[in-house]
Amino acid sequence: MGWTNLSGDVVIGKEGKGLRPSLCLFTCEAVGGSVNDAMPAAVALEFIHNFSLIHDDIQDRDEFRHGRETLWKIWGIPKALMAGNVLKVLSDHCLMQLVTRDIGFNRVICVVEMLTEACLTMIEGQSLDISYEGNYAVSIEEYFNMISRKTGALIQCSMEVGATIGTEDHNLIHSLRDIGASLGTMFQIRDDVLGIWGDQHLTGKPVGADIKRKKESFPLVYSLTKATKKQRELLFQIYNKEEIDDQDTHRVLDLMEDIGVRRRAYELTLDYHKAAKKSLKDSGLNTTVQTEFENLFGFLLERSY
Amino acid sequence: MGWTNLSGDVVIGKEGKGLRPSLCLFTCEAVGGSVNDAMPAAVALEFIHNFSLIHDDIQDRDEFRHGRETLWKIWGIPKALMAGNVLKVLSDHCLMQLVTRDIGFNRVICVVEMLTEACLTMIEGQSLDISYEGNYAVSIEEYFNMISRKTGALIQCSMEVGATIGTEDHNLIHSLRDIGASLGTMFQIRDDVLGIWGDQHLTGKPVGADIKRKKESFPLVYSLTKATKKQRELLFQIYNKEEIDDQDTHRVLDLMEDIGVRRRAYELTLDYHKAAKKSLKDSGLNTTVQTEFENLFGFLLERSY
Repeated sequence: MGWTNLSGDVVIGKEGKGLRPSLCLFTCEAVGGSVNDAMPAAVALEFIHNFSLIHDDIQDRDEFRHGRETLWKIWGIPKALMAGNVLKVLSDHCLMQLVTRDIGFNRVICVVEMLTEACLTMIEGQSLDISYEGNYAVSIEEYFNMISRKTGALIQCSMEVGATIGTEDHNLIHSLRDIGASLGTMFQIRDDVLGIWGDQHLTGKPVGADIKRKKESFPLVYSLTKATKKQRELLFQIYNKEEIDDQDTHRVLDLMEDIGVRRRAYELTLDYHKAAKKSLKDSGLNTTVQTEFENLFGFLLERSY
Repeated sequence: MGWTNLSGDVVIGKEGKGLRPSLCLFTCEAVGGSVNDAMPAAVALEFIHNFSLIHDDIQDRDEFRHGRETLWKIWGIPKALMAGNVLKVLSDHCLMQLVTRDIGFNRVICVVEMLTEACLTMIEGQSLDISYEGNYAVSIEEYFNMISRKTGALIQCSMEVGATIGTEDHNLIHSLRDIGASLGTMFQIRDDVLGIWGDQHLTGKPVGADIKRKKESFPLVYSLTKATKKQRELLFQIYNKEEIDDQDTHRVLDLMEDIGVRRRAYELTLDYHKAAKKSLKDSGLNTTVQTEFENLFGFLLERSY
């Protein structure tokens, strides 16, 4: 699992946020369900997320995550590939523990199908992401479609599953699923911003990290869309280099500043934040719960790690 | 899926045997169940098998399978990795179709758990296989333990699942699972023999293919165990080369002939064939069904593709 290096020494890294299982458990409790009933699904969600991270790191050839070397970097692709697969199969195993909870057969099946569907959509998003590599004509719409699948599907599913386990009120489940969809996109835009302007001590990534990786995240897609002819030429010139050095990274950062990428990204996350609040209001949940959800939205909007 | 090359032209290859779904459907019918009830599990089994093949080819860097280029060879590792994952998730999706059959909730759960367990065991076997690479001290016992997991688990599961869907007679299910375990090992030993002495026109692999790939299959493991000091030195000398050429391949083939590898492999498959027949007799299935099973055993014992 990458918790040790090749010599067997423990390597301490940052912990993940556990966002998906937290959303699942919190949502289940918010609609009146029991955290214990949702636990098997919460664990399955975290395993699926880690399965996708391990395989993503292989695909993107990323060498670090959370301040530790990635699994394939330490153990090679064949073993990392299997470690990811084991997590996927363990997620199936965990999920089946739902049958030991008193939530009824139909609900178990429903949850299993939601997770299966979310996995397929997530892989579809990863596939789009890969197909966009080196394609600098990706539109903002294509970018949003991609992240709603790659990141959004599992976050949305976390809330939908938590709600489904906790209640039979279909309108309520719908509202929470809608909140999940908004949070998923908001989360990814914020992630893209942190991938370039994040604090290295908090994110474990140096400033401009995603520029050096040539990652086609929101800042680049938006810059390419809004750039003047001259700015586009500069971007192409830099992104067509074998490696982007510190000086070029700073030229791109300046250009993004001129285009106003960070401001636009923040405006967009605010739009999704607003949409999530609207769905929350529609849910009819009591005010105490709504306040707790709003705190969560606020964290996801402003988070710096 | 590798059915076309990069230009989009259809590439015709050999079809797989569909062994696992066939075993599942046949076993279900043999114990008095309906083929239609077992169909979701049969499709899931074939998807799981193909998921493992696609990822295996990435791990082993194999460039051809069934006379076609492998997926990673055509599309690269990132896309092939995802194609494998999609098949795994689709297998989950197919399996859940069991709930539309009238076989009861508990049986569906039982089948899902059997398949999950088999997947984990299969990955464990793949992991052992990889850990043995370049380790020429692998014993026959370790080899048999490895193949019983890597290949045996899913074949055994195919019959156990078919039986579980078709009957509630636990003794009968046990007998069929035991048959599956014997067939699994028999299948892999035969596969290893075909990987070296198979007819190129039938297997799609040239004579000595697994020698050139330095694959630690039964013939090599057995040879190393039984070789004289001089024979071992020759084997080490050849297997330590960067590439094994035609001349060296023929020297290894001669050495394996001297050691009597093929004869020993055939004796072992006969032992497993006998064990399968014993379990079949214990099953108490009617003679017509037993005869059909015996024909299947005979095919697996002597198959040349």
